[in-house]
This record gives sequence, C-alpha cells and structure tokens, in this order.
Amino acid sequence: MKTDIVIIGGGPSGLLLSQLLNRAGVATVVLERASRAHVLSRIRAGVLEAGTVRMLREAGAGDRMDREGIPHDGCIFSDDDLMVRVDFRDLTGTGVMVYGQTEVTADLYAAQDAMGATILHEVADVAIHDADTDAPYVTFTQDGAPRRIDCAYIAGCDGFHGVSRKTIPADKRQEFERVYPFGWLGLLSRTPPAHAELIYANSRNGFALASMRNPMLSRYYVQVPLTERVEDWPDDRFWDKLKSCLPAEVAATLVTGPSVEKSIAPLRSFVCEPLRWGRLFLVGDAAHIVPPTGAKGLNLAVSDVYYLHEALIAAIRRGDTAGIDAYSARALARIWKAMRFSWSMTMMLHRFDGEDSFAAQMRKATLLHLSQSETARRDLAENYIGLPF
Amino acid sequence: MKTDIVIIGGGPSGLLLSQLLNRAGVATVVLERASRAHVLSRIRAGVLEAGTVRMLREAGAGDRMDREGIPHDGCIFSDDDLMVRVDFRDLTGTGVMVYGQTEVTADLYAAQDAMGATILHEVADVAIHDADTDAPYVTFTQDGAPRRIDCAYIAGCDGFHGVSRKTIPADKRQEFERVYPFGWLGLLSRTPPAHAELIYANSRNGFALASMRNPMLSRYYVQVPLTERVEDWPDDRFWDKLKSCLPAEVAATLVTGPSVEKSIAPLRSFVCEPLRWGRLFLVGDAAHIVPPTGAKGLNLAVSDVYYLHEALIAAIRRGDTAGIDAYSARALARIWKAMRFSWSMTMMLHRFDGEDSFAAQMRKATLLHLSQSETARRDLAENYIGLPF
Repeated sequence: MKTDIVIIGGGPSGLLLSQLLNRAGVATVVLERASRAHVLSRIRAGVLEAGTVRMLREAGAGDRMDREGIPHDGCIFSDDDLMVRVDFRDLTGTGVMVYGQTEVTADLYAAQDAMGATILHEVADVAIHDADTDAPYVTFTQDGAPRRIDCAYIAGCDGFHGVSRKTIPADKRQEFERVYPFGWLGLLSRTPPAHAELIYANSRNGFALASMRNPMLSRYYVQVPLTERVEDWPDDRFWDKLKSCLPAEVAATLVTGPSVEKSIAPLRSFVCEPLRWGRLFLVGDAAHIVPPTGAKGLNLAVSDVYYLHEALIAAIRRGDTAGIDAYSARALARIWKAMRFSWSMTMMLHRFDGEDSFAAQMRKATLLHLSQSETARRDLAENYIGLPF
Repeated sequence: MKTDIVIIGGGPSGLLLSQLLNRAGVATVVLERASRAHVLSRIRAGVLEAGTVRMLREAGAGDRMDREGIPHDGCIFSDDDLMVRVDFRDLTGTGVMVYGQTEVTADLYAAQDAMGATILHEVADVAIHDADTDAPYVTFTQDGAPRRIDCAYIAGCDGFHGVSRKTIPADKRQEFERVYPFGWLGLLSRTPPAHAELIYANSRNGFALASMRNPMLSRYYVQVPLTERVEDWPDDRFWDKLKSCLPAEVAATLVTGPSVEKSIAPLRSFVCEPLRWGRLFLVGDAAHIVPPTGAKGLNLAVSDVYYLHEALIAAIRRGDTAGIDAYSARALARIWKAMRFSWSMTMMLHRFDGEDSFAAQMRKATLLHLSQSETARRDLAENYIGLPF
C-alpha cells in the first residue's frame, strides 16, 4: 500500500489534518489504535479558539458547530472575595466557541466519510521505519495480519503515549516537563450549567471550574491530590466540594444531578523539541501537553495542523519543502507562548500543598490586578481567545 | 516633651512624612537610631516612579532631583537570545526618574533643616507606649539620658528590623513572607553605565541588573547563592560574572573599574497586616519588603506616606479621623499589587537552583511574549512606572 501522508492517530488533530490534506488533493491514510466508538466516547476539552473555529469551517466540518456551539464572549475568574469578568469580545473583538471535542471529532469523522477518506481503526503494533530517509514506511497489524504503507511523510498525531515521539532517537530530541502536584476530578452531568459563562475559581478550598458542553450538559472540575481515587468520590461528595469552591451566589443556585462520567486527570506541561525528525512530524499531544487550565490543548493541536497542512501540501503538490523545513520552529514559537499561558493560569488558580503564606496572597493579588487593570484583562483575553497563527 | 506626631525612623519615608506634615502645620519629632552620616552612607534604590517624583516636588525637596536626576522613558529586558525594550513613555505617557535614594535622603534632610524640623539622631532604646490608648508616648535615651515624648499619633518608619512593627501584639497582626533562595551581589563603580537605560537580564548564568546613579556612577548586580560572601568576590570575579549574564553586545563594551561599594542583599517579600494598631501606623519597610526586582521598595514607602500624611493632617487639623481609619486598607490595596509585580518580576528573571527543565523555558517564553505583545509590554510598563495613588 502507498499514500502521500500516513497520519498516525485518529483523534481530532489527525482527522483535521487528513481532511485538509484530502481537500487539497493530497492522499492520506489515518491509523487509529482504538475503535471509532471508543474515540467518540472520550470526554475532552470544550472551548474552541476563533482560529480553531475558522479551521473547522475551512475543513468543511463546521456546520453543526455553527448550529449547536455556544459562542462565549467572556468568562469569569473568582476567588473567595471577588468575581471578575473578562470580556473577550470587548477587549479583542472576538470570542470563543463552547463545543465539545467529542462533537468536533464526530463532525470530522462525518466529513472524512463524506470524502471517502481512508481511516483504519483498531490497528496494532504501529511502527515507523526509515523516517530519516527519503523512503519512510509504516507497519502495523490489522485483524492479526501484518500491513505496510509506504509514504512521502508521516504525521504523528498519536498523543502523549503514542509511538511517534518515541520513534525519534533520544539524542535527537529535547524534552521539557513539569508535573503539577494535583489533578482535576471531572464530572459530567445532564444538568443546566451553573452560569452562562465558564467560571474559573481560585478558592481557599482549591481550584474549581464550572464549564459546559451544551444547555443541558454541564462539565465541572475540582482540584484533588494525585493520591485520590474516583471510587472515593461519590457524586454527593463531588457536589459538596464543588460548592465550597465556587462563588457563594453561584453555589447557591447550582443544579446538581447524577454523574454521566467522572474521572481524574493529572496536570502536566510537556514539550518535545524539535517537532521534526526527517520525514516524521509531531502534531498536538504527541509533542506537547498543557494543563487544561486555559483550554489550550485541542486548540494548540489545531495550530500545529494549520502550519503542517500548508507545509505538506506545498511539498507534495509543488515539491516546495520550505514549509516543512520551517514547520517545527513556526509551530514551537506559538506552542511556547501557549505553554506559558497555560502554566501561568495554572499557577494563578491552584492551591499548592505546603506552599508558604505568601503564595495564596499572590493568587489573590493577581485576581485583584485583573479586576482593576483593563490592560491585564486584555492580556488574558488575547491569550485566551488564542494568539494569531 | 510633646508633639503632634512622633516619627520613628529618619530614612526617606520618615523624612518625607515629616516634611509634608511640617509644611501643613503639623508638628513632628523624628527619631533616628543612627547618625546622619550613617544614614547618608547607605546605598539603596535608584528608580523613582512618577508619583514619587511628584511627592518630592510637593514636599519642596525636588529641585536637585529635577536638575540632576535622569529621566528614563524605558528599560530593557534580555535573555541569552532576546533584548526587549519596554517603552514606558510610549505605552503610558510617562516615565521614571533615575536618582539615588541616598540623594533623596540628603535633599529631604536639607529641606527639613530649612524648616527647622526636629530630627533627633543617635537615639537608643526607642519604645512605644500605650499606642492602643488615646495618650500614646515614646521613650528613648539620648546621650545616655532618658527622654519621653507625648504625642497624638506615632508613625513607624523604622524599617524591617525596627521596633514599630514588633510593638504590635502578635495576635493583632498577620504576616506573610517569602524568602527567595538567592541574593543580589551589588557593586557601585565610578564608571559610565553599560547602557543608557536599565537592563534586566535573565541569562543561563543567572540574573543581572545593569543600573546607574548618574553618568559616572554605575550600579550593577548579579544573582548569587545566599551562601556567598562578599570577600569571595574580588572585583574581577564580579565583572566576569556580570559580563556572562548581560547581552553579548552590552558586555563587549562594558567599562569596568574599581568598586566603590560591594554588598550582598537577600531577597524577601514580606507584608504585615494591618498597618495600624491604635495610634501607631506602619509605613514602608516597617510593614512590607519587596525584592528589589522592579524597584518598588522606596516608591511603595512613598505611597504609604501619601495616604498617611493626608490622613494625619485631617486628624490633627480638623479632627477628621476618616482618613486614619481608612489608611491601612487604602495603602494595602496598592501594596499587594506592588508585591505581586515585584514577585512576578523576580520569578521571571531569576534562575532557581534545582528547578525543573520547564522553569527556564517559562522565563524565556515570558520574555518572548513580552517581545511580541504590546499588551504585555503595556501591563509591565503600567506597573513599573507605578500604579496610581
């Protein structure tokens, strides 16, 4: 088997890349370890930057998002004393779109299906070969049978635990990592959201986020030690904890209900440099992880896809390799700024065990500054809605 | 002996407060532990916010500053790859004044002398009595003789190690502290400054600051572990270290010379709340310490003086105590924002021993963001030139 681009990973970044390449006449094969049903069962992010919205429309996968997504023109930051609204639209002229990653993935599958794209699910033993030569290929097994695809380039969209990054020899990459000493316990419930906009709460009881997927589907998170287990958090305990972190007026009117999903996610910052090894390119979580504070994970994968799809089309269609030579540096410049934003949001909003008496005061002072400085709110808004790409 | 206000501490904040009160017809006595010569030998900060400049003029102590001070309209932030200029004037409409604290103090002494103010030097055993009653008084010894001054109010301008804060019962105050795991080794030399503007350098070799007092007096700092001793830093070693931290083009033209003064200062953030106990008010370093990154120490003392002088004049002249009741909260609101700024500058610019691989990248990304975002530069400039008071 032979194609232009093998895309390893059938999550949103792999599917979006495939879709954009297919529309430009570049042939792709997407390899996904899991079943389609499994991919679509993952509960992930839910806030799309304006640039992500634009890319999904360009990919021909934006119709349902435009119908069902909820445009948000601002969000709320709070602590035990203050509630500060950051008005994205007022400060930057644009907003964000609340629309679940699960829905984005479903729409991309539908768009890919409509184009007759090749997406192979439940493939195992994926291995990348000769990526540092002019004749790379990928092997895997499907239904127990060994398979091989030869290609011009390989896009590694297979996430933090995927094979792509690990294929790059250790002496050809540099990794930067911060593991935060807490996780987010998330709960999904079929209840109306606590508030019309997202609330990021820095409270004396720890961090909480009141988010949503749609008018009858709420997504809430509370900060928990990494030692906690989901089994120890019956719904009632979760709701009590959440209420103790949210502003009192929001907690008072919170509608609770049985959980649809509940899980604990660790928080990590991670970057692997460079994003290229020969004819292999890393995209999204395969190369970088952000803590969810600030909703940058999916959006950052989309800007990688933006840079890479342009570069691959130029290389395949016109033999112009300037774009692929520039991909890593272009993408990393934006990645490091989003890493900084996600890290600073994480530091501003979470309580750290064993911190000194000054730390909580700095978080409160940061919120106070945000409440009093339009410049500080604009800086946050410009980063939240997404830096240009 | 009897007066309206006893001011403990004859540094710049005590002298400025005394000067402003005297000009409004309020009587003061300033008590200073050291000799005038000793006070004037201290090498301290050198950057005055626009508000501090205004206050010194209002106090009638701004003439020499206006002649000899050097207005700075911006400063430079650098790392091993980037030099970023933040144009204060362009971004905020105002700048700062480079003029040494030692000179400010000398000018205030001259202004106080011209008014015939009472400043008692080399007093010992200062003790504050009955501050929580309507009849406070202060005792001390001078030339071995016990003295007592009765007063309406007491201003504690006697610094971090002074008696004023410690007079407040421990259960009536709350203290917040962060001690940073490094110090600044400072060197003063009669050489032309490395650059027309200050340079704050975050380098792989640690932090350095290239500052100045006048066109032939330079003040430089390098980050050192707290275990270092000045004796282990002959001038040559200092200059080598400084050059390794500054941008290469600046290091290449650096003029070195023998040190006039050399000392190591630890970096600390500290706040004591509230600033009032009965008729005792804390001002400046007596209540709060900032790390020198961002040059907020003297300026923050001056805004305390601004709030307190207004309040004391109203109380003494018109019996209106609303201002003294509001003093602590008014001053603290500004203090916490300056604490945040000084802390964030410190975190952005220093290398921390044992930090993870991600930390240095976050400092670089912060500088990259600063270089690319006018909003980020404006936020920094607004804080650097001083928030309004």
